[in-house]
Amino acid sequence: MGACQSFREMCDREKNTNVHLSLPAVCIVWQTAMIILFGVFMRYDHESDAHWVEHRKHSNLTDIENDFYFRYPSFQDVHVMIFVGFGFLMTFLKRYSFGGVGFNFLIAAFGLQWALLMQGWFHWLDADGKIRIGIENLINADFCVAGCLIAYGALLGKVSPVQLMVLTLFGITLFAVEEFIIISVIHARDAGGSMVIHTFGGYYGLSVSWMLYRPNLHQSSRLQGSVYHSDVFAMIGTLFLWMFWPSFNSAICDHGDGQHRAAINTYLCLASTVLTTVAISSLFQKHGKLDMVHIQNSTLAGGVAAGTAAEFMLMPYGCLIVGFCCGIISTLGYIFLTPFMEKHLKIQDTCGIHNLHAMPGVVGGIVGAITAASASIEVYGHEGLVNTFDFMDKFKDMVPTTQGGHQAAGLCVALCFGIGGGIIVGAILRLPIWGDPADDNCFDDETYWEDVRICNVKSEFSRYFSTQKVLGCTKRKKLYWYP
Amino acid sequence: MGACQSFREMCDREKNTNVHLSLPAVCIVWQTAMIILFGVFMRYDHESDAHWVEHRKHSNLTDIENDFYFRYPSFQDVHVMIFVGFGFLMTFLKRYSFGGVGFNFLIAAFGLQWALLMQGWFHWLDADGKIRIGIENLINADFCVAGCLIAYGALLGKVSPVQLMVLTLFGITLFAVEEFIIISVIHARDAGGSMVIHTFGGYYGLSVSWMLYRPNLHQSSRLQGSVYHSDVFAMIGTLFLWMFWPSFNSAICDHGDGQHRAAINTYLCLASTVLTTVAISSLFQKHGKLDMVHIQNSTLAGGVAAGTAAEFMLMPYGCLIVGFCCGIISTLGYIFLTPFMEKHLKIQDTCGIHNLHAMPGVVGGIVGAITAASASIEVYGHEGLVNTFDFMDKFKDMVPTTQGGHQAAGLCVALCFGIGGGIIVGAILRLPIWGDPADDNCFDDETYWEDVRICNVKSEFSRYFSTQKVLGCTKRKKLYWYP
Amino acid sequence: MGACQSFREMCDREKNTNVHLSLPAVCIVWQTAMIILFGVFMRYDHESDAHWVEHRKHSNLTDIENDFYFRYPSFQDVHVMIFVGFGFLMTFLKRYSFGGVGFNFLIAAFGLQWALLMQGWFHWLDADGKIRIGIENLINADFCVAGCLIAYGALLGKVSPVQLMVLTLFGITLFAVEEFIIISVIHARDAGGSMVIHTFGGYYGLSVSWMLYRPNLHQSSRLQGSVYHSDVFAMIGTLFLWMFWPSFNSAICDHGDGQHRAAINTYLCLASTVLTTVAISSLFQKHGKLDMVHIQNSTLAGGVAAGTAAEFMLMPYGCLIVGFCCGIISTLGYIFLTPFMEKHLKIQDTCGIHNLHAMPGVVGGIVGAITAASASIEVYGHEGLVNTFDFMDKFKDMVPTTQGGHQAAGLCVALCFGIGGGIIVGAILRLPIWGDPADDNCFDDETYWEDVRICNVKSEFSRYFSTQKVLGCTKRKKLYWYP
Repeated sequence: MGACQSFREMCDREKNTNVHLSLPAVCIVWQTAMIILFGVFMRYDHESDAHWVEHRKHSNLTDIENDFYFRYPSFQDVHVMIFVGFGFLMTFLKRYSFGGVGFNFLIAAFGLQWALLMQGWFHWLDADGKIRIGIENLINADFCVAGCLIAYGALLGKVSPVQLMVLTLFGITLFAVEEFIIISVIHARDAGGSMVIHTFGGYYGLSVSWMLYRPNLHQSSRLQGSVYHSDVFAMIGTLFLWMFWPSFNSAICDHGDGQHRAAINTYLCLASTVLTTVAISSLFQKHGKLDMVHIQNSTLAGGVAAGTAAEFMLMPYGCLIVGFCCGIISTLGYIFLTPFMEKHLKIQDTCGIHNLHAMPGVVGGIVGAITAASASIEVYGHEGLVNTFDFMDKFKDMVPTTQGGHQAAGLCVALCFGIGGGIIVGAILRLPIWGDPADDNCFDDETYWEDVRICNVKSEFSRYFSTQKVLGCTKRKKLYWYP
Repeated sequence: MGACQSFREMCDREKNTNVHLSLPAVCIVWQTAMIILFGVFMRYDHESDAHWVEHRKHSNLTDIENDFYFRYPSFQDVHVMIFVGFGFLMTFLKRYSFGGVGFNFLIAAFGLQWALLMQGWFHWLDADGKIRIGIENLINADFCVAGCLIAYGALLGKVSPVQLMVLTLFGITLFAVEEFIIISVIHARDAGGSMVIHTFGGYYGLSVSWMLYRPNLHQSSRLQGSVYHSDVFAMIGTLFLWMFWPSFNSAICDHGDGQHRAAINTYLCLASTVLTTVAISSLFQKHGKLDMVHIQNSTLAGGVAAGTAAEFMLMPYGCLIVGFCCGIISTLGYIFLTPFMEKHLKIQDTCGIHNLHAMPGVVGGIVGAITAASASIEVYGHEGLVNTFDFMDKFKDMVPTTQGGHQAAGLCVALCFGIGGGIIVGAILRLPIWGDPADDNCFDDETYWEDVRICNVKSEFSRYFSTQKVLGCTKRKKLYWYP
Repeated sequence: MGACQSFREMCDREKNTNVHLSLPAVCIVWQTAMIILFGVFMRYDHESDAHWVEHRKHSNLTDIENDFYFRYPSFQDVHVMIFVGFGFLMTFLKRYSFGGVGFNFLIAAFGLQWALLMQGWFHWLDADGKIRIGIENLINADFCVAGCLIAYGALLGKVSPVQLMVLTLFGITLFAVEEFIIISVIHARDAGGSMVIHTFGGYYGLSVSWMLYRPNLHQSSRLQGSVYHSDVFAMIGTLFLWMFWPSFNSAICDHGDGQHRAAINTYLCLASTVLTTVAISSLFQKHGKLDMVHIQNSTLAGGVAAGTAAEFMLMPYGCLIVGFCCGIISTLGYIFLTPFMEKHLKIQDTCGIHNLHAMPGVVGGIVGAITAASASIEVYGHEGLVNTFDFMDKFKDMVPTTQGGHQAAGLCVALCFGIGGGIIVGAILRLPIWGDPADDNCFDDETYWEDVRICNVKSEFSRYFSTQKVLGCTKRKKLYWYP
């Protein structure tokens, strides 16, 4: 046992986190590939092309009816969620804020290009073999990226940027296939992506994390926590996610009542979640104190669960009920399930994405199936029903009850792609070539980021404590006992 | 005197800040009540209902004329002001950032649900006894919540979350009644809520604070201040409030020129305020140094004062004048009035809401009354006048001068409701059952929040200072000398 | 040499940073001047005037066709970029976060009023001598301010607030003249301001910095760096700039396809920049570590370079190529050019605006000239070509190739105004009356901001270290070794 232990430690010490060649190479090669593929395939659609002015006159439209004005405000909100929301939510670790917000930035910027291509090939390919993009494609690309950022949440602090790039490349690819099957083949509706984004992204990340299990992660446990200020930074992420989630769920809904209703539903769902999260957090803590982890994460579960049914007639009280349940489930997940999973299932989930995305995503899928199955002409009106569920063309004979079944089938597909894809990609990421950190080096920015602060702190410090001895600098000169 | 002192101290020490049962109970019970009431009363309005597609065709409208597209961008900006703006503005205290942003989150999420109901009953009740909600209701609910968050500013650090929930429940109720009287009965115009939101909210909070006066608050004076980083966090709140205030004041204005003009007026008013705030702050400080407190708060006073008159023809130079005055008044308030009120009037106003909301709100009400009284057909045009002041139906014979009188009456109502309501609610909050902190425990997150950081800092620290003695840990193990 | 040195030091020590009278005087006088000038010149335009309701009916428009609804969401995004984006990007210095975000706030609020006037006189003057403002003017004012904020980036930490006010007054004036020449006289197109804003602002700031060269700046080198948290704060600025840049470049484009295309182009350009920035940053650092300075700044270069050509048919792959190059150029600039310029050209560029704004701005101008010159009727359609390049009225006979020449001429004008204007304004700012700090006092908030924290930290600290001696307080009592 002792020998085994020391052997492992030796291996760990020999881990090479040098990404001096691999990271630049991956970035340059993939960006060059993007340029070539964009050159071959990507064109403006008729609403963003300079020919629009002719098209507009021909179709007797006004400028304001360009899709841009229906969707641009929502797009920008979604964009904020992806970069500031997800990014700052992951700054909570005391020494991994750079990695949280910085790598999030990197993989989102790469992912959205690849997503434009992948989704374009599946959904927007014209007769002449070109992909025509407009504002809706940008939103969809951001959505697609969200799936991979969720997965990053489970791996935060334990992987190298190169691994993240690989994770994203495969993740986007899997996402596009899964989305095509769920939306186009099965004809499930999923405006806010409870199934397509959150269930898939959540289980994808958990499976990868299971494959990359680190038995000696406790060696860096001193860094696997927050400090006061890093928790306040994370609240920036939480609040921007919470506030803009109505835009997320309504961004690609139908014009008019679809977008309007999705925003209202999500707003109500999220409000309700906050109260039950606080209740459960307080109930299970000594003296009724609140836990910042729950406030930062579980308050968002309602937005996830409102995704699929966002544009349905969920009714205001229905939204409150969904939010009520999700706040409870998600907070209990943080208290009981995450430690259980780490101990018994060997799944190390840094941000608790199982509680914030995976479980509420499944709840959202189920809520969507039930709401769809119970839709009626009384509630929707005939045209409203056709409009909301898109009972047109190939699916014009569909009825709500069968639609409910299709929704459930969609959820299963998302689960399979998440778990299956995660295991395969996890296996690839286990190869010892990606520059991931040793167990005692996890959750530490220093591995991949220039560390200007050491010298600064040192010099500031030594102005007051004159002898170097007091400082007790270790050889590696880590001194940051603040923050 | 000495005995009295020690008795008081004893009482304080016996204060029980355990909210282990009360907080979860209040959250769950009230959220359940919301679900039931929403089930009975709340429905989608015709623009967010699935029947919209039929209605649209019938009324010969295009999708873009759904009210959603007129108001959604403004709504999201208001939403950001409520959660990030107010929330981060209250993170300035060195050890109460969690409480500032976290409790703000909690009471806003609860308040908006109750506000939808209260405002719905007064303003949006249909013939069939149902409330029909759309995007405008969400904005109004956020507005209503703002009144209570302003009140929280005066009490920051001195109350328990349960007290805050009670404060919000009563605050929203009072707000809805007051708003109904001012807007519907008196027919005063108040698009940006100088009177309805800021005057009411400000005096409501100050009255509650007066009722909850703590003579020994100096015992926690060591925590009643900011540190460098917490001041930078607070600037996030300041700037989001400042930037999005044009959306706040224009969000529920008339479509077209009303929203357009309100945004321009507020923008100009705020710009002017910044300059006079800086001038006064510099003038009254040694060496002309600026005080962060003024920059964080007084720069916003112009937005408050532009509220009532935002949609009137205040003229660009009029806006600059209003902003000019408000910057001066508000900053002088921080320098002279807040200490005076604490010492002589027994009103402890943590955030200085009297200078940021109450006084500028009154100024805004007066500006609104004057501007309304001096409105003329030359400036507005006949249709413009009718449109702007809503001289229709019951009020079709009204003239600007009488409108001015009604505006003034509205201001008085706001003042009365604020002060009267605050005293009553303050009396309720003095009951010794709410779990509020002792005087020497105020402004300290540790009372209501799990404190992960203590151990962290300690362990980091002890790596460099080997003996526990040097650490000098007190029994309560508070070590955070940073931040 | 030693005598010279000590003489200089003496001069420095005698520098008087007291702005007790000058700052309030400048603020009050200038704000009063603004009120008078606004009173004389400024009126609402027909879309924000109360007469709109009559105009609307007369022109058979709907409310949603008010320009407000085309541009307001973009305006708010631009507003966020100016105040939070630029403001927080400049919080990266460890002891100058107040100055970064606070002075940015001050000069932006002043600048936008002056910009409304200056741009109004040149572009929006009515026959009756009045300036009519609407939402587009607010956007243009924000743009104009951006030029001065860019210049502030080069001077960050080395100038007094009074100097900044003077810099802004002249900067806005120069900007308005330069913009008039480039846009109206030369008829160059520059929707996102690569030339007008970034090239001008960048070289304006660099020239001023060259005139204000401080040979002994190394005396405050201990403060010219970041700490961990200040770098995370700066990322807030980076991300809001990055996310909202599509709004910046599309805000004043033509309605419809113009705005739509500009947003898409900028989005793609920025995504590509992130990858090459990471690649170059990693390539030139030991062990492939990333440098926060590059991630915070160079990732934005693509947005700058996409400015001029944003509304042209740059094609998606063209955007990726532009972003690709800019990431490389900008990051290499930080690594090689900034140290070179400081050492050999005597230009001290605190934020590296040469790499973020000046160079990418020139690239953007060139890209714009090439794209314009190669425009064809096949790609744009006849009406699209006329529409995009505004080949109307006086310029109705223009062809793309001559337009390309005009674009290049515009770039030259921007360069001349930037460099020439900067030298003149720099000369003015060298006068010893502005209260700028001594060389060893640069990058220190304490010079211009009330310093609440010192006492706080001290008291907290002394609770654990009982003797004052250990504290080692210097006479000036600076203790903040955190942050």
